[in-house]
Amino acid sequence: MSVVYERVALIGLGLIAGSMAHAIRRRGLAGHVAGHARSAETRRAAGEIGFVDSVHATAAEAVKGADLVVLAVPVGAMGAVAAEIAPHLKPGATVTDVGSVKQAVIDAVGPHIPPGVHFVPGHPLAGTEHSGPYSGFATLFENRWWLLTPPEGADPAAVNRLRTLCEGMGANVDAMDAPHHDLVLAVVSHTPHLIAYTMVGVADHLRRVSQSEVIKYSASGFRDFTRIAASDPTMWRDVFLTNKEATLDILGRFTEELFVLQRAIRMGDGQHLFDYFTRTRAIRRGIIEAGQDTDAPDFGRVRKG
Amino acid sequence: MSVVYERVALIGLGLIAGSMAHAIRRRGLAGHVAGHARSAETRRAAGEIGFVDSVHATAAEAVKGADLVVLAVPVGAMGAVAAEIAPHLKPGATVTDVGSVKQAVIDAVGPHIPPGVHFVPGHPLAGTEHSGPYSGFATLFENRWWLLTPPEGADPAAVNRLRTLCEGMGANVDAMDAPHHDLVLAVVSHTPHLIAYTMVGVADHLRRVSQSEVIKYSASGFRDFTRIAASDPTMWRDVFLTNKEATLDILGRFTEELFVLQRAIRMGDGQHLFDYFTRTRAIRRGIIEAGQDTDAPDFGRVRKG
Repeated sequence: MSVVYERVALIGLGLIAGSMAHAIRRRGLAGHVAGHARSAETRRAAGEIGFVDSVHATAAEAVKGADLVVLAVPVGAMGAVAAEIAPHLKPGATVTDVGSVKQAVIDAVGPHIPPGVHFVPGHPLAGTEHSGPYSGFATLFENRWWLLTPPEGADPAAVNRLRTLCEGMGANVDAMDAPHHDLVLAVVSHTPHLIAYTMVGVADHLRRVSQSEVIKYSASGFRDFTRIAASDPTMWRDVFLTNKEATLDILGRFTEELFVLQRAIRMGDGQHLFDYFTRTRAIRRGIIEAGQDTDAPDFGRVRKG
Repeated sequence: MSVVYERVALIGLGLIAGSMAHAIRRRGLAGHVAGHARSAETRRAAGEIGFVDSVHATAAEAVKGADLVVLAVPVGAMGAVAAEIAPHLKPGATVTDVGSVKQAVIDAVGPHIPPGVHFVPGHPLAGTEHSGPYSGFATLFENRWWLLTPPEGADPAAVNRLRTLCEGMGANVDAMDAPHHDLVLAVVSHTPHLIAYTMVGVADHLRRVSQSEVIKYSASGFRDFTRIAASDPTMWRDVFLTNKEATLDILGRFTEELFVLQRAIRMGDGQHLFDYFTRTRAIRRGIIEAGQDTDAPDFGRVRKG
């Protein structure tokens, strides 16, 4: 691969930025990767791991001379970071972000972007339940989607250059408008996370079933929920606060649907349950055929042998 | 290992019975494994795979002379099978089952068990989203729990012998009473499955987000739900119909809890969300420490490298 941006600045050095740094370095996609994290401990860790070429004490310093600036902080912190770096951005540079919500980031960051700087918001649909500088790895984005939501009138060359970087890290790139992104993500990510958090919370509150029983017997379905519900609390708080409308919309549909199934259970309507459970199987098949998950039983956790 | 039962009869030849057959054979836990499935196609497959020593056209024939009879059919079919085999059970034999609900099985099967035959209901907390005779494998039960719910007055020697078999297949065995089993499973398995089915159903119904988008972008959380929601529809229909009270109880708590979180989103109460999401992380930690899941990111689906 050849260099896509001479100098890249990563603001925030957690799972996503760390994985980008590893991937950019491995594929030779940038000449220099600068990094900043607010926490001194994270900056120290980044220096120790050595996944960036330079670590900076302030975001303003990190973005100086950068051709690409990546905002990789929780959605709720994007606006303040944008305000801080704005005066230091190089003319012609591109600013992107990796937030899980796009309209709120556009509203918070957009007004700070100076004329002559390109703003191309983005969202890699990749991650694990781990967080922090030690959790990143170079292959995180391989065969995952990276969604870009360029505003109307965005410079096509700037968008294409960012797309080249994402593809260089192994991702597939799609573009869509921000409101549609936020609705899609409410369906495939935000609402499932809230539901998983809720189910784990219910188990935590029960008196008649002890926590040790919940933990011991979790393999029967519950543990899949706990993985999702172990994700970074700050990130997810911000997701729900900033993608409120779409999440509440999908949650409303979810509750309606749940009540219909609950009623079928109460009335003993086995046919309704059977038909419903048969339809959902087909969706799983589609996901495996699209290469978005493994068909190995139980996510390959079991070792057949 | 030495032989625990001279002759074992498996009624139903799906994922669980098939895995038992493989495990029993590999560890030498029985002298002869007889099998029966209602469907001729499944019997043919079992013969082809060769995981049982004899395949029988009727359950009555399969149980003849068996020291252990395992009912491995959907919970709703247990009563009819018990009625059919009852006159053919060998005196001193043990009958067990592998149903996900225990009180309903006891109510349906218990009355048919003749004097002199032991009835020790059981439930292996093991499985995958696959089903049918080709889905079984010998290691399915390793380090998984197998719960026994012997009725009051059950013969301790019969219970211990069954325990030895389960442990021989690699499982850890616990005993508890049937109503408690059904409540625990409603928490760790039945309600999570219903919720996963519901979320997948919601995604299936949406007009504004296409099914291809749901499938393409599923890696962001949704795909974990689809795995659960791909499980056998007949089995799960019967679970909800027969563990109705406990499932409705836990569902009610889930809905209450969800409404509290939904309200926090609507009111913008970030502190409430943050605190909630922080508590749920601790439960995940407990499950990993208890050896019930891997700490590898994303269930080990990602290949760090």
